Amino acid sequence: MKQSTSLESNAPGTGEEMYSLARRLFPICRSLTGDGVRETLSILREIIPIETHEVPSGTQAFDWEIPPEWNIRDAYIKDDTGKRVVDFAESNLHVVGYSIPFEGRLSLQELNEHLYSLPEQPDLIPYITSYYSPRWGFCLTHRQRETLAEGTYEVCVDSTLEPGSLTYADLLIKGSSDRQILISTYVCHPSMANNELSGPIVATFLARQLLELKNLRYSYRFVFAPETIGSIVYLSKHLEELREKVIAGYVVTCAGDPGPFSYLQTPNGDSLVDKVTKHVLENSGEEYMLYDFLTRGSDERQYCSPGVNLPIGSLMRTKYGEYPYHTSGDNLSFVTAGGLAGSLALYGRCLETIEQNATYRVTVCGEPQLSKRGLYPTLSTKESGKLVRRMMNLLAFSDGSRDLLSVAERIGEPVWELFPIVDRMLEHDLLERVD
Amino acid sequence: MKQSTSLESNAPGTGEEMYSLARRLFPICRSLTGDGVRETLSILREIIPIETHEVPSGTQAFDWEIPPEWNIRDAYIKDDTGKRVVDFAESNLHVVGYSIPFEGRLSLQELNEHLYSLPEQPDLIPYITSYYSPRWGFCLTHRQRETLAEGTYEVCVDSTLEPGSLTYADLLIKGSSDRQILISTYVCHPSMANNELSGPIVATFLARQLLELKNLRYSYRFVFAPETIGSIVYLSKHLEELREKVIAGYVVTCAGDPGPFSYLQTPNGDSLVDKVTKHVLENSGEEYMLYDFLTRGSDERQYCSPGVNLPIGSLMRTKYGEYPYHTSGDNLSFVTAGGLAGSLALYGRCLETIEQNATYRVTVCGEPQLSKRGLYPTLSTKESGKLVRRMMNLLAFSDGSRDLLSVAERIGEPVWELFPIVDRMLEHDLLERVD
Amino acid sequence: MKQSTSLESNAPGTGEEMYSLARRLFPICRSLTGDGVRETLSILREIIPIETHEVPSGTQAFDWEIPPEWNIRDAYIKDDTGKRVVDFAESNLHVVGYSIPFEGRLSLQELNEHLYSLPEQPDLIPYITSYYSPRWGFCLTHRQRETLAEGTYEVCVDSTLEPGSLTYADLLIKGSSDRQILISTYVCHPSMANNELSGPIVATFLARQLLELKNLRYSYRFVFAPETIGSIVYLSKHLEELREKVIAGYVVTCAGDPGPFSYLQTPNGDSLVDKVTKHVLENSGEEYMLYDFLTRGSDERQYCSPGVNLPIGSLMRTKYGEYPYHTSGDNLSFVTAGGLAGSLALYGRCLETIEQNATYRVTVCGEPQLSKRGLYPTLSTKESGKLVRRMMNLLAFSDGSRDLLSVAERIGEPVWELFPIVDRMLEHDLLERVD
Repeated sequence: MKQSTSLESNAPGTGEEMYSLARRLFPICRSLTGDGVRETLSILREIIPIETHEVPSGTQAFDWEIPPEWNIRDAYIKDDTGKRVVDFAESNLHVVGYSIPFEGRLSLQELNEHLYSLPEQPDLIPYITSYYSPRWGFCLTHRQRETLAEGTYEVCVDSTLEPGSLTYADLLIKGSSDRQILISTYVCHPSMANNELSGPIVATFLARQLLELKNLRYSYRFVFAPETIGSIVYLSKHLEELREKVIAGYVVTCAGDPGPFSYLQTPNGDSLVDKVTKHVLENSGEEYMLYDFLTRGSDERQYCSPGVNLPIGSLMRTKYGEYPYHTSGDNLSFVTAGGLAGSLALYGRCLETIEQNATYRVTVCGEPQLSKRGLYPTLSTKESGKLVRRMMNLLAFSDGSRDLLSVAERIGEPVWELFPIVDRMLEHDLLERVD
Repeated sequence: MKQSTSLESNAPGTGEEMYSLARRLFPICRSLTGDGVRETLSILREIIPIETHEVPSGTQAFDWEIPPEWNIRDAYIKDDTGKRVVDFAESNLHVVGYSIPFEGRLSLQELNEHLYSLPEQPDLIPYITSYYSPRWGFCLTHRQRETLAEGTYEVCVDSTLEPGSLTYADLLIKGSSDRQILISTYVCHPSMANNELSGPIVATFLARQLLELKNLRYSYRFVFAPETIGSIVYLSKHLEELREKVIAGYVVTCAGDPGPFSYLQTPNGDSLVDKVTKHVLENSGEEYMLYDFLTRGSDERQYCSPGVNLPIGSLMRTKYGEYPYHTSGDNLSFVTAGGLAGSLALYGRCLETIEQNATYRVTVCGEPQLSKRGLYPTLSTKESGKLVRRMMNLLAFSDGSRDLLSVAERIGEPVWELFPIVDRMLEHDLLERVD
Repeated sequence: MKQSTSLESNAPGTGEEMYSLARRLFPICRSLTGDGVRETLSILREIIPIETHEVPSGTQAFDWEIPPEWNIRDAYIKDDTGKRVVDFAESNLHVVGYSIPFEGRLSLQELNEHLYSLPEQPDLIPYITSYYSPRWGFCLTHRQRETLAEGTYEVCVDSTLEPGSLTYADLLIKGSSDRQILISTYVCHPSMANNELSGPIVATFLARQLLELKNLRYSYRFVFAPETIGSIVYLSKHLEELREKVIAGYVVTCAGDPGPFSYLQTPNGDSLVDKVTKHVLENSGEEYMLYDFLTRGSDERQYCSPGVNLPIGSLMRTKYGEYPYHTSGDNLSFVTAGGLAGSLALYGRCLETIEQNATYRVTVCGEPQLSKRGLYPTLSTKESGKLVRRMMNLLAFSDGSRDLLSVAERIGEPVWELFPIVDRMLEHDLLERVD
């Protein structure tokens, strides 16, 4: 994959392009099911050739069952004067996700049992859902809630909960090996930007970059599905193949803000994806956070469950729960073009590392004589000294038992600095690949 | 063993009952052999159905030979005026254990070669024995020794050292498995309370509790024998069976004072008994001490010797050597009802953990849907949140490879908090046992 | 090897004898090839029966080829007045090693391109070589260089670079096993004392001591060869045998100064030679330095290269690069008789440890009764208490799975304190050897 340098650095303007996509997807009312998901996926399909699938309501998937499809056209609370004081048209967060249809007039006291607000974050609208117990409700800022006067309110939730289907999409980019890297992200949250729009956007652009590359070593499987039930449905359909082929993967989420990176490890923290991601973060020279699987919260809960047991980590920026998550505070000003583009580049570096990682063995006994091959720099500088040291150390530890990543860790170098040196050593037949 | 909650907590008054037993056993003059051991065991037999065994003097046991039986009726030192200045009747510590018979009149200088005292602990009578080289002697406080005037003393040791037998007792409580837990303690010390009466007392009450339980998983073997030679004799008679069946065990000693717990590990420190005891202590919320096998001092020296190699640790309170040990300071005011009862409860928790420990595997792929089974608390509180987290983490890490103890360590929970959750998961067929 | 106590301590005067040898070898102009090497080896042959070998120029050895043989008779720079301002006769460091023959008159400017000095160490003559690109040059102190006036200089390098041979020597001291310990050192540096004369001197005296011993367990292979090309030639001739037989070894260098010891570990740092040397250093009670293989710099680069993969460390005093190395500062006042003798003794202790290391198993079940064998000291002192504890701990951990070195590490004792105890236990049949 020597042509693949574009995995590690973005074309100019990529961040802005990603941010534009966020702006376009933001207003759509997504949920576990329904037309919002379909609309979202069809926009992504303009960029990458994902294939969309529909699975009927009521279908069993492992321990779960696909719920009815939910769609909503309008919802509001009107006060005595007929004024819409809470209006779905203003923000789709105002309605509890999967609210059942309702029309009626209620006292403030009755209404209050259907209202959700955050006393400790009084300016934010919370994001609330009730997928599996039928209820309706409205979410609003606590500050607004406190202004609601006694009186009678007219409430309307013009929604439908009917047999339909759950929608997801996937894409397989084939490499020379049928071993797969799984990239999974979710498309079930309404107007929030970091969780979740950053996920599908980074995944989409990553797929676009991979599609441009020739000579991919591994195959890449992208999944865009509603969280939890979507990944469970996907797993139930493909478990055997995934178990056989997937060697590493990520759940992409919370990857759009400009904060430091964080990585949620697999249950044992020692699979290839863990080693690669921790190496890349540790050698990035930047601050980052490492999280144990005990703090999991997204689809790794399904992918890494004991019965499934796939090696999937989650590379994020500011982790869910560590910012005004699941509120109206997670909006288009929380994510940035630079945040999105930086995530794309870091994912690129991780995938590049997986692609390039291999086990090499030095072909000669004793140290090779580098000078007769012109491999010693003719001018000795601090930089050339570093290069020679890297080259000698690479050769000294490439014994056919350590992979390149382990060599990099052992000799204390970023693995990506070794890629071009490996290429030179291969050209000169000083290294051979053994796996 | 779901009925076995009584292992982890004592019936009211148990501590006082244990302390009464200590008071009753205290005056008896025990030694390696002799009637004191028999009397002690016959008192314990009032509580639990131990079986007593006699092994003749001269019998070979591994590298050792059972010494003659020692009994003593009276012993004293009289001064010029005929007054008993040192009298066995006052404290059986006054006579060196295994003293040969003697009668005679000695100058103070001659007598001094047979006297033992502790200049640095001048108010305590030391405990001294001479099992394998024939001599007689008296022990007294250093303060008293300094008051002995020049003059002639009349000395009498009315003891016998004759062919007889070594006495020990054992008890096997059968569980559904023939795998055994070995609980060994010793009965060869005269009037001292922590070392050794706490040992036989805690062991006796532990056996009494186990006898009351139905559905024990493991079998429990209790041994009451003189230290060193007794455990060697026991091992020499049962080595093959013990090696085949014993999966864990303890030497019970120094378990009656109110000090913090301490645990002496097996030679490698990584057997089941080590893992269980360290987990229980670490999660007790209380201070404790961990000791390496290099600081061993009791019958684990035999049980863990290379040729025997049983996985036996020693759970104590204040360890021998860390308090006025082997002196008259180890008396009935050094141990307490609470100290004894607390040890009983902690041993109970350790055994309960061994009983309940097993390897489980979650039965579904992906996360189970808990709400449809009513396994989510309906009221969300801080406590219920903790319970859900424990339940989810238990399911996430029960992959059929880790036992429950390892799961508890991995998810950072006391294993005993998982016992009732495991029961609920088993009822709902969400976990299955794999071992 | 019970007679071998002379390995651990030197005969009186050994240090002085070693230092005399250094004085004698110092003036000789050694290089990769040439008569200086031959003269050096013939002096060593007066002490130990090494065998000298000649390998023709142009011979291939792995990735390398033996260069032409270099000899030099005279070299100087004369100023306008005909005075020799730089003179090979004064110090053989003045000429760049492997300088091609040259005669001519040069301006100061032209001359300067052939001069080497150290501005930051202005009083030292640097040691420079140019084995594989043909050039000539002179080395001088920076202070002298600054005094060179403009003018014309007459330069003469009376050297020859002609087909000849590379010279090395070796010696095999046979023990009862054909497993070998490899001791390698180099003989290619001109007048420098720590690097390299300390290496061949310590190796020579070590060989002399081993030759005096009866009952060696292992065989010892000594190699005296020019650095890099010499060890490569040696390996290319003996690789199969070395790989089959060598279980441990050292590159001896920088072992003559009085500074603290340092040890450069093998690539994985966990082979026998690493364990032994680190144990010996750690228990020496003295300060020492441990170096990773990343800081390698001598023939371990060849011995430990992946295609060769021998378990060879390097035990030094002040490591190359950490003192005025490769300069005229590395002279006879930098090394001392005590420094040389101390290195010899420490190498001796390491070899003694390798010789004595074995796996033992206690022969009895339970603890042996030591008193009946007179193995308990009759007088109890602090020293005797330590001895009993060592003896009991040795027996408690000699389970037939740990070797003596591991037992020593486990029980926290210097392994050499266990050697005499092991001997006593073997005499009493309390230990048996299992490997």
